[in-house]
Amino acid sequence: MLVPENSLITPDPESGRELAIRIARLTVKAMQPDDEMRSALRPAYAGNADSLTAAAHVVAIEFATIAAANNYWR
Amino acid sequence: MLVPENSLITPDPESGRELAIRIARLTVKAMQPDDEMRSALRPAYAGNADSLTAAAHVVAIEFATIAAANNYWR
Amino acid sequence: MLVPENSLITPDPESGRELAIRIARLTVKAMQPDDEMRSALRPAYAGNADSLTAAAHVVAIEFATIAAANNYWR
Amino acid sequence: MLVPENSLITPDPESGRELAIRIARLTVKAMQPDDEMRSALRPAYAGNADSLTAAAHVVAIEFATIAAANNYWR
Amino acid sequence: MLVPENSLITPDPESGRELAIRIARLTVKAMQPDDEMRSALRPAYAGNADSLTAAAHVVAIEFATIAAANNYWR
Amino acid sequence: MLVPENSLITPDPESGRELAIRIARLTVKAMQPDDEMRSALRPAYAGNADSLTAAAHVVAIEFATIAAANNYWR
Repeated sequence: MLVPENSLITPDPESGRELAIRIARLTVKAMQPDDEMRSALRPAYAGNADSLTAAAHVVAIEFATIAAANNYWR
Repeated sequence: MLVPENSLITPDPESGRELAIRIARLTVKAMQPDDEMRSALRPAYAGNADSLTAAAHVVAIEFATIAAANNYWR
Repeated sequence: MLVPENSLITPDPESGRELAIRIARLTVKAMQPDDEMRSALRPAYAGNADSLTAAAHVVAIEFATIAAANNYWR
Repeated sequence: MLVPENSLITPDPESGRELAIRIARLTVKAMQPDDEMRSALRPAYAGNADSLTAAAHVVAIEFATIAAANNYWR
Repeated sequence: MLVPENSLITPDPESGRELAIRIARLTVKAMQPDDEMRSALRPAYAGNADSLTAAAHVVAIEFATIAAANNYWR
Repeated sequence: MLVPENSLITPDPESGRELAIRIARLTVKAMQPDDEMRSALRPAYAGNADSLTAAAHVVAIEFATIAAANNYWR
Protein backbone atom coordinates (compact mmCIF):
# COMPACT_ATOMS: atom_id res chain seq x y z
CA MET A 1 0.00 0.00 0.00
CA LEU A 2 1.32 3.39 -1.02
CA VAL A 3 -1.74 5.64 -0.61
CA PRO A 4 -3.98 4.94 2.42
CA GLU A 5 -7.60 4.40 1.36
CA ASN A 6 -6.40 4.97 -2.22
CA SER A 7 -7.49 8.60 -2.14
CA LEU A 8 -5.98 12.07 -1.85
CA ILE A 9 -9.25 13.58 -0.61
CA THR A 10 -9.42 14.40 3.10
CA PRO A 11 -11.99 16.30 5.18
CA ASP A 12 -9.65 19.07 6.34
CA PRO A 13 -6.04 20.38 6.34
CA GLU A 14 -5.11 18.50 9.52
CA SER A 15 -6.04 15.13 8.03
CA GLY A 16 -4.39 16.20 4.77
CA ARG A 17 -1.19 16.79 6.67
CA GLU A 18 -1.44 13.40 8.37
CA LEU A 19 -1.88 11.81 4.95
CA ALA A 20 1.21 13.63 3.64
CA ILE A 21 3.30 12.19 6.47
CA ARG A 22 1.91 8.70 5.95
CA ILE A 23 2.49 8.77 2.20
CA ALA A 24 6.07 9.92 2.69
CA ARG A 25 6.69 7.08 5.15
CA LEU A 26 5.06 4.49 2.88
CA THR A 27 7.39 5.50 0.07
CA VAL A 28 10.42 4.91 2.26
CA LYS A 29 8.90 1.55 3.29
CA ALA A 30 8.47 0.59 -0.37
CA MET A 31 12.16 1.30 -0.97
CA GLN A 32 13.35 -0.31 2.28
CA PRO A 33 10.73 -2.95 3.21
CA ASP A 34 12.80 -4.45 6.07
CA ASP A 35 11.10 -3.23 9.27
CA GLU A 36 14.14 -3.91 11.42
CA MET A 37 16.41 -1.95 9.12
CA ARG A 38 14.07 1.05 9.13
CA SER A 39 13.86 0.91 12.93
CA ALA A 40 17.65 0.77 13.14
CA LEU A 41 17.95 3.87 10.96
CA ARG A 42 15.47 5.84 13.00
CA PRO A 43 17.58 7.04 16.01
CA ALA A 44 20.35 8.62 13.92
CA TYR A 45 17.81 10.22 11.62
CA ALA A 46 15.54 11.52 14.41
CA GLY A 47 18.56 12.90 16.24
CA ASN A 48 19.94 14.89 13.33
CA ALA A 49 18.48 18.30 12.54
CA ASP A 50 19.37 18.20 8.85
CA SER A 51 17.79 14.75 8.44
CA LEU A 52 14.60 16.02 10.07
CA THR A 53 14.59 19.09 7.82
CA ALA A 54 15.03 16.87 4.75
CA ALA A 55 12.10 14.70 5.85
CA ALA A 56 9.96 17.78 6.53
CA HIS A 57 10.83 18.93 3.01
CA VAL A 58 9.35 15.77 1.52
CA VAL A 59 6.21 16.13 3.63
CA ALA A 60 5.85 19.73 2.37
CA ILE A 61 5.85 18.53 -1.24
CA GLU A 62 3.39 15.70 -0.59
CA PHE A 63 1.14 18.15 1.23
CA ALA A 64 1.24 20.60 -1.69
CA THR A 65 -0.17 17.85 -3.93
CA ILE A 66 -2.82 16.81 -1.40
CA ALA A 67 -3.83 20.43 -0.77
CA ALA A 68 -4.28 21.03 -4.50
CA ALA A 69 -6.30 17.80 -4.79
CA ASN A 70 -8.64 19.10 -2.11
CA ASN A 71 -8.83 22.56 -3.68
CA TYR A 72 -7.14 23.79 -0.48
CA TRP A 73 -10.25 22.89 1.59
CA ARG A 74 -11.68 26.31 0.70
CA MET B 1 -1.76 19.13 15.88
CA LEU B 2 -0.16 19.61 12.47
CA VAL B 3 -2.08 22.60 11.07
CA PRO B 4 -2.92 25.40 13.55
CA GLU B 5 -6.65 26.16 13.57
CA ASN B 6 -6.97 23.43 10.93
CA SER B 7 -6.98 25.97 8.11
CA LEU B 8 -4.68 27.30 5.41
CA ILE B 9 -6.62 30.55 5.11
CA THR B 10 -4.99 33.62 6.66
CA PRO B 11 -5.86 37.33 6.52
CA ASP B 12 -2.65 38.48 4.82
CA PRO B 13 0.82 37.40 3.56
CA GLU B 14 2.51 38.12 6.90
CA SER B 15 0.24 35.74 8.79
CA GLY B 16 0.54 33.27 5.92
CA ARG B 17 4.28 33.32 6.37
CA GLU B 18 3.94 32.78 10.12
CA LEU B 19 1.71 29.80 9.40
CA ALA B 20 4.30 28.37 6.99
CA ILE B 21 6.97 28.52 9.71
CA ARG B 22 4.65 26.95 12.28
CA ILE B 23 3.57 24.14 9.98
CA ALA B 24 7.19 23.34 9.15
CA ARG B 25 8.05 23.20 12.83
CA LEU B 26 5.02 21.04 13.68
CA THR B 27 6.11 18.52 11.07
CA VAL B 28 9.53 18.22 12.68
CA LYS B 29 7.81 17.88 16.05
CA ALA B 30 5.65 15.05 14.69
CA MET B 31 8.77 13.22 13.58
CA GLN B 32 10.78 13.99 16.73
CA PRO B 33 8.22 14.49 19.56
CA ASP B 34 10.87 14.66 22.31
CA ASP B 35 11.05 18.34 23.32
CA GLU B 36 14.43 17.97 24.98
CA MET B 37 15.93 16.33 21.91
CA ARG B 38 14.65 19.10 19.63
CA SER B 39 16.05 21.74 22.01
CA ALA B 40 19.39 19.94 22.05
CA LEU B 41 19.50 19.96 18.25
CA ARG B 42 18.72 23.64 17.99
CA PRO B 43 22.11 25.33 18.68
CA ALA B 44 24.05 23.39 16.03
CA TYR B 45 21.27 23.89 13.52
CA ALA B 46 20.79 27.62 14.25
CA GLY B 47 24.54 28.15 14.05
CA ASN B 48 25.00 26.53 10.66
CA ALA B 49 24.25 28.55 7.53
CA ASP B 50 23.45 25.53 5.38
CA SER B 51 21.02 24.16 7.99
CA LEU B 52 19.26 27.52 8.11
CA THR B 53 19.07 27.64 4.32
CA ALA B 54 17.59 24.12 4.27
CA ALA B 55 14.96 25.14 6.83
CA ALA B 56 14.16 28.31 4.87
CA HIS B 57 13.72 26.09 1.83
CA VAL B 58 11.01 24.07 3.57
CA VAL B 59 9.26 27.26 4.70
CA ALA B 60 9.32 28.51 1.09
CA ILE B 61 7.49 25.40 -0.08
CA GLU B 62 4.91 25.51 2.71
CA PHE B 63 4.33 29.19 1.94
CA ALA B 64 3.80 28.45 -1.76
CA THR B 65 0.93 26.12 -0.80
CA ILE B 66 -0.55 28.60 1.69
CA ALA B 67 -0.26 31.48 -0.80
CA ALA B 68 -2.09 29.46 -3.46
CA ALA B 69 -4.77 28.50 -0.92
CA ASN B 70 -5.34 32.20 -0.26
CA ASN B 71 -5.30 33.09 -3.95
CA TYR B 72 -2.16 35.12 -3.14
CA TRP B 73 -4.22 37.57 -1.04
CA ARG B 74 -4.97 39.50 -4.23
CA MET C 1 11.77 2.90 -21.79
CA LEU C 2 11.31 5.87 -19.49
CA VAL C 3 7.51 5.98 -19.00
CA PRO C 4 5.75 2.61 -18.64
CA GLU C 5 2.91 2.26 -21.17
CA ASN C 6 3.88 5.74 -22.38
CA SER C 7 1.15 7.36 -20.30
CA LEU C 8 0.74 9.38 -17.11
CA ILE C 9 -2.91 8.38 -16.74
CA THR C 10 -3.66 5.79 -14.05
CA PRO C 11 -6.94 4.50 -12.62
CA ASP C 12 -6.33 5.65 -9.03
CA PRO C 13 -3.82 7.26 -6.60
CA GLU C 14 -2.27 3.92 -5.62
CA SER C 15 -1.35 3.07 -9.20
CA GLY C 16 -0.25 6.69 -9.70
CA ARG C 17 2.13 6.28 -6.82
CA GLU C 18 3.48 3.02 -8.25
CA LEU C 19 4.06 4.81 -11.53
CA ALA C 20 5.94 7.62 -9.76
CA ILE C 21 8.31 5.10 -8.18
CA ARG C 22 8.83 3.27 -11.48
CA ILE C 23 9.51 6.49 -13.40
CA ALA C 24 12.04 7.62 -10.82
CA ARG C 25 13.83 4.27 -11.05
CA LEU C 26 13.80 4.27 -14.85
CA THR C 27 15.49 7.67 -14.84
CA VAL C 28 18.30 6.34 -12.67
CA LYS C 29 18.56 3.33 -14.99
CA ALA C 30 18.87 5.66 -17.99
CA MET C 31 21.76 7.45 -16.30
CA GLN C 32 23.41 4.25 -14.99
CA PRO C 33 22.37 1.44 -17.35
CA ASP C 34 24.74 -1.15 -15.82
CA ASP C 35 22.48 -3.51 -13.81
CA GLU C 36 25.35 -4.84 -11.71
CA MET C 37 26.50 -1.37 -10.77
CA ARG C 38 22.98 -0.36 -9.71
CA SER C 39 22.66 -3.53 -7.63
CA ALA C 40 26.01 -2.83 -6.00
CA LEU C 41 24.88 0.67 -5.05
CA ARG C 42 21.63 -0.52 -3.52
CA PRO C 43 22.71 -1.78 -0.03
CA ALA C 44 24.47 1.46 0.99
CA TYR C 45 21.60 3.53 -0.34
CA ALA C 46 18.83 1.42 1.24
CA GLY C 47 20.68 1.46 4.54
CA ASN C 48 21.07 5.21 4.76
CA ALA C 49 18.17 7.31 6.04
CA ASP C 50 19.20 10.45 4.15
CA SER C 51 19.53 8.55 0.88
CA LEU C 52 16.05 7.10 1.37
CA THR C 53 14.66 10.56 2.13
CA ALA C 54 16.29 11.94 -1.01
CA ALA C 55 14.76 9.16 -3.09
CA ALA C 56 11.35 9.73 -1.48
CA HIS C 57 11.74 13.40 -2.42
CA VAL C 58 12.09 12.53 -6.11
CA VAL C 59 9.05 10.24 -5.92
CA ALA C 60 7.06 13.09 -4.35
CA ILE C 61 7.84 15.35 -7.32
CA GLU C 62 7.06 12.69 -9.91
CA PHE C 63 3.79 11.97 -8.10
CA ALA C 64 2.84 15.67 -8.14
CA THR C 65 3.08 15.63 -11.93
CA ILE C 66 1.16 12.37 -12.26
CA ALA C 67 -1.54 13.56 -9.84
CA ALA C 68 -2.00 16.78 -11.83
CA ALA C 69 -2.16 14.76 -15.07
CA ASN C 70 -4.99 12.72 -13.57
CA ASN C 71 -6.76 15.79 -12.21
CA TYR C 72 -6.09 14.29 -8.76
CA TRP C 73 -8.46 11.38 -9.48
CA ARG C 74 -11.32 13.58 -8.26
CA MET D 1 8.29 41.18 9.98
CA LEU D 2 8.35 38.33 7.49
CA VAL D 3 6.83 39.92 4.36
CA PRO D 4 7.86 43.54 3.60
CA GLU D 5 4.81 45.79 3.21
CA ASN D 6 2.73 42.66 3.88
CA SER D 7 2.15 42.09 0.16
CA LEU D 8 3.34 39.83 -2.63
CA ILE D 9 2.34 42.33 -5.31
CA THR D 10 5.19 44.23 -6.96
CA PRO D 11 5.30 46.55 -9.98
CA ASP D 12 7.67 44.44 -12.07
CA PRO D 13 9.88 41.30 -12.15
CA GLU D 14 12.96 43.15 -10.86
CA SER D 15 11.17 44.27 -7.70
CA GLY D 16 9.59 40.83 -7.42
CA ARG D 17 13.06 39.34 -7.41
CA GLU D 18 14.22 41.80 -4.75
CA LEU D 19 11.23 40.79 -2.65
CA ALA D 20 12.09 37.09 -3.05
CA ILE D 21 15.61 37.73 -1.72
CA ARG D 22 14.29 39.79 1.19
CA ILE D 23 11.66 37.22 2.16
CA ALA D 24 14.26 34.45 2.11
CA ARG D 25 16.54 36.49 4.36
CA LEU D 26 13.73 37.39 6.75
CA THR D 27 12.94 33.71 7.18
CA VAL D 28 16.51 32.98 8.19
CA LYS D 29 16.36 35.95 10.54
CA ALA D 30 13.19 34.56 12.15
CA MET D 31 14.97 31.28 12.79
CA GLN D 32 18.26 32.86 13.90
CA PRO D 33 17.37 36.32 15.31
CA ASP D 34 20.88 37.00 16.67
CA ASP D 35 22.39 39.60 14.30
CA GLU D 36 25.95 38.86 15.39
CA MET D 37 25.53 35.14 14.81
CA ARG D 38 24.15 35.71 11.31
CA SER D 39 27.04 38.07 10.52
CA ALA D 40 29.50 35.49 11.80
CA LEU D 41 27.99 32.84 9.53
CA ARG D 42 28.13 35.04 6.46
CA PRO D 43 31.80 34.75 5.32
CA ALA D 44 31.87 30.94 5.21
CA TYR D 45 28.51 30.86 3.48
CA ALA D 46 29.34 33.59 0.93
CA GLY D 47 32.66 31.91 0.18
CA ASN D 48 31.21 28.48 -0.55
CA ALA D 49 29.74 27.80 -3.99
CA ASP D 50 27.37 25.09 -2.78
CA SER D 51 26.02 27.33 -0.01
CA LEU D 52 25.38 30.09 -2.54
CA THR D 53 23.64 27.64 -4.86
CA ALA D 54 21.44 26.43 -1.98
CA ALA D 55 20.50 30.02 -1.14
CA ALA D 56 19.77 30.78 -4.81
CA HIS D 57 17.53 27.70 -4.80
CA VAL D 58 15.40 29.15 -1.99
CA VAL D 59 15.16 32.49 -3.80
CA ALA D 60 14.00 30.66 -6.94
CA ILE D 61 11.12 29.07 -5.03
CA GLU D 62 10.09 32.31 -3.31
CA PHE D 63 10.19 34.04 -6.71
CA ALA D 64 7.96 31.37 -8.26
CA THR D 65 5.30 32.19 -5.66
CA ILE D 66 5.68 35.95 -6.11
CA ALA D 67 5.60 35.65 -9.90
CA ALA D 68 2.38 33.62 -9.74
CA ALA D 69 0.88 36.18 -7.32
CA ASN D 70 1.59 38.89 -9.88
CA ASN D 71 0.28 36.81 -12.78
CA TYR D 72 3.85 36.94 -14.11
CA TRP D 73 3.58 40.72 -14.72
CA ARG D 74 2.06 39.91 -18.12
CA MET E 1 21.79 24.94 -27.68
CA LEU E 2 19.81 24.57 -24.49
CA VAL E 3 16.42 23.30 -25.72
CA PRO E 4 16.52 20.74 -28.58
CA GLU E 5 14.35 21.87 -31.51
CA ASN E 6 13.57 24.96 -29.43
CA SER E 7 10.27 23.47 -28.24
CA LEU E 8 8.76 21.90 -25.15
CA ILE E 9 6.06 20.15 -27.15
CA THR E 10 6.52 16.41 -27.66
CA PRO E 11 4.22 13.73 -29.10
CA ASP E 12 3.98 11.63 -25.92
CA PRO E 13 5.23 11.16 -22.31
CA GLU E 14 8.16 8.97 -23.37
CA SER E 15 9.59 11.62 -25.67
CA GLY E 16 8.81 14.26 -23.03
CA ARG E 17 10.91 12.31 -20.59
CA GLU E 18 13.77 12.04 -23.10
CA LEU E 19 13.58 15.79 -23.57
CA ALA E 20 13.74 16.35 -19.80
CA ILE E 21 16.95 14.31 -19.60
CA ARG E 22 18.48 16.12 -22.58
CA ILE E 23 17.59 19.57 -21.23
CA ALA E 24 19.11 18.72 -17.84
CA ARG E 25 22.32 17.56 -19.53
CA LEU E 26 22.51 20.61 -21.78
CA THR E 27 22.31 22.86 -18.72
CA VAL E 28 25.28 21.09 -17.16
CA LYS E 29 27.11 21.41 -20.49
CA ALA E 30 26.41 25.16 -20.55
CA MET E 31 27.96 25.48 -17.10
CA GLN E 32 30.89 23.12 -17.81
CA PRO E 33 31.50 23.25 -21.58
CA ASP E 34 34.73 21.21 -21.44
CA ASP E 35 33.81 17.76 -22.83
CA GLU E 36 36.84 16.07 -21.29
CA MET E 37 36.07 17.47 -17.86
CA ARG E 38 32.45 16.28 -18.01
CA SER E 39 33.61 12.82 -19.11
CA ALA E 40 36.12 12.74 -16.25
CA LEU E 41 33.35 13.56 -13.75
CA ARG E 42 31.04 10.87 -15.05
CA PRO E 43 32.37 7.65 -13.38
CA ALA E 44 32.28 9.03 -9.83
CA TYR E 45 28.84 10.50 -10.40
CA ALA E 46 27.37 7.41 -12.09
CA GLY E 47 28.77 5.22 -9.33
CA ASN E 48 27.28 7.18 -6.46
CA ALA E 49 23.66 6.55 -5.50
CA ASP E 50 23.13 10.02 -4.02
CA SER E 51 24.53 11.71 -7.13
CA LEU E 52 22.17 9.67 -9.30
CA THR E 53 19.23 10.56 -7.06
CA ALA E 54 20.14 14.26 -7.28
CA ALA E 55 20.29 14.04 -11.07
CA ALA E 56 16.95 12.19 -11.17
CA HIS E 57 15.55 15.01 -9.04
CA VAL E 58 16.48 17.60 -11.66
CA VAL E 59 14.96 15.46 -14.42
CA ALA E 60 11.74 15.23 -12.38
CA ILE E 61 11.48 19.02 -12.25
CA GLU E 62 12.23 19.50 -15.94
CA PHE E 63 9.65 16.83 -16.74
CA ALA E 64 7.02 18.60 -14.62
CA THR E 65 7.46 21.70 -16.80
CA ILE E 66 7.39 19.72 -20.05
CA ALA E 67 4.33 17.74 -18.94
CA ALA E 68 2.46 20.96 -18.11
CA ALA E 69 3.49 22.43 -21.47
CA ASN E 70 1.94 19.42 -23.19
CA ASN E 71 -1.17 19.51 -21.03
CA TYR E 72 -0.06 16.11 -19.74
CA TRP E 73 -0.64 14.52 -23.16
CA ARG E 74 -4.28 13.99 -22.16
CA MET F 1 20.06 44.08 -11.82
CA LEU F 2 18.33 40.80 -11.01
CA VAL F 3 16.08 40.25 -14.05
CA PRO F 4 17.56 41.19 -17.47
CA GLU F 5 15.30 43.62 -19.33
CA ASN F 6 12.99 43.41 -16.32
CA SER F 7 10.77 40.84 -18.01
CA LEU F 8 10.06 37.12 -17.91
CA ILE F 9 8.68 37.12 -21.44
CA THR F 10 10.94 35.62 -24.12
CA PRO F 11 10.33 34.75 -27.78
CA ASP F 12 10.97 31.02 -27.44
CA PRO F 13 12.08 28.17 -25.10
CA GLU F 14 15.77 28.57 -25.99
CA SER F 15 15.84 32.22 -24.93
CA GLY F 16 13.72 31.31 -21.89
CA ARG F 17 16.38 28.82 -20.89
CA GLU F 18 19.13 31.42 -21.36
CA LEU F 19 17.16 33.77 -19.13
CA ALA F 20 16.81 31.08 -16.46
CA ILE F 21 20.59 30.62 -16.38
CA ARG F 22 21.21 34.38 -16.24
CA ILE F 23 18.68 34.93 -13.45
CA ALA F 24 20.22 32.12 -11.39
CA ARG F 25 23.68 33.66 -11.82
CA LEU F 26 22.47 37.17 -10.99
CA THR F 27 21.04 35.87 -7.72
CA VAL F 28 24.39 34.41 -6.73
CA LYS F 29 26.02 37.72 -7.72
CA ALA F 30 23.57 39.61 -5.49
CA MET F 31 24.57 37.40 -2.57
CA GLN F 32 28.32 37.42 -3.37
CA PRO F 33 29.00 40.69 -5.25
CA ASP F 34 32.80 40.28 -5.19
CA ASP F 35 33.76 39.30 -8.76
CA GLU F 36 37.14 37.91 -7.73
CA MET F 37 35.59 35.73 -5.06
CA ARG F 38 33.04 34.30 -7.50
CA SER F 39 35.81 33.61 -10.03
CA ALA F 40 37.86 31.89 -7.36
CA LEU F 41 34.92 29.65 -6.48
CA ARG F 42 34.29 28.64 -10.07
CA PRO F 43 36.93 25.92 -10.71
CA ALA F 44 35.99 23.77 -7.72
CA TYR F 45 32.30 24.17 -8.50
CA ALA F 46 32.63 23.49 -12.24
CA GLY F 47 34.78 20.45 -11.51
CA ASN F 48 32.35 18.81 -9.11
CA ALA F 49 29.44 16.79 -10.50
CA ASP F 50 27.20 17.34 -7.48
CA SER F 51 27.77 21.11 -7.57
CA LEU F 52 26.84 21.16 -11.24
CA THR F 53 23.72 19.10 -10.55
CA ALA F 54 22.72 21.50 -7.76
CA ALA F 55 23.16 24.46 -10.10
CA ALA F 56 21.17 22.73 -12.83
CA HIS F 57 18.44 22.17 -10.23
CA VAL F 58 18.15 25.90 -9.61
CA VAL F 59 18.01 26.59 -13.35
CA ALA F 60 15.21 24.01 -13.66
CA ILE F 61 13.12 25.90 -11.10
CA GLU F 62 13.75 29.30 -12.65
CA PHE F 63 12.84 27.85 -16.04
CA ALA F 64 9.57 26.44 -14.69
CA THR F 65 8.56 29.97 -13.67
CA ILE F 66 9.64 31.50 -16.97
CA ALA F 67 7.89 28.77 -18.97
CA ALA F 68 4.64 29.36 -17.06
CA ALA F 69 5.01 33.12 -17.60
CA ASN F 70 5.22 32.50 -21.35
CA ASN F 71 2.35 30.03 -21.31
CA TYR F 72 4.92 27.44 -22.39
CA TRP F 73 5.38 29.19 -25.78
CA ARG F 74 2.42 27.18 -27.07
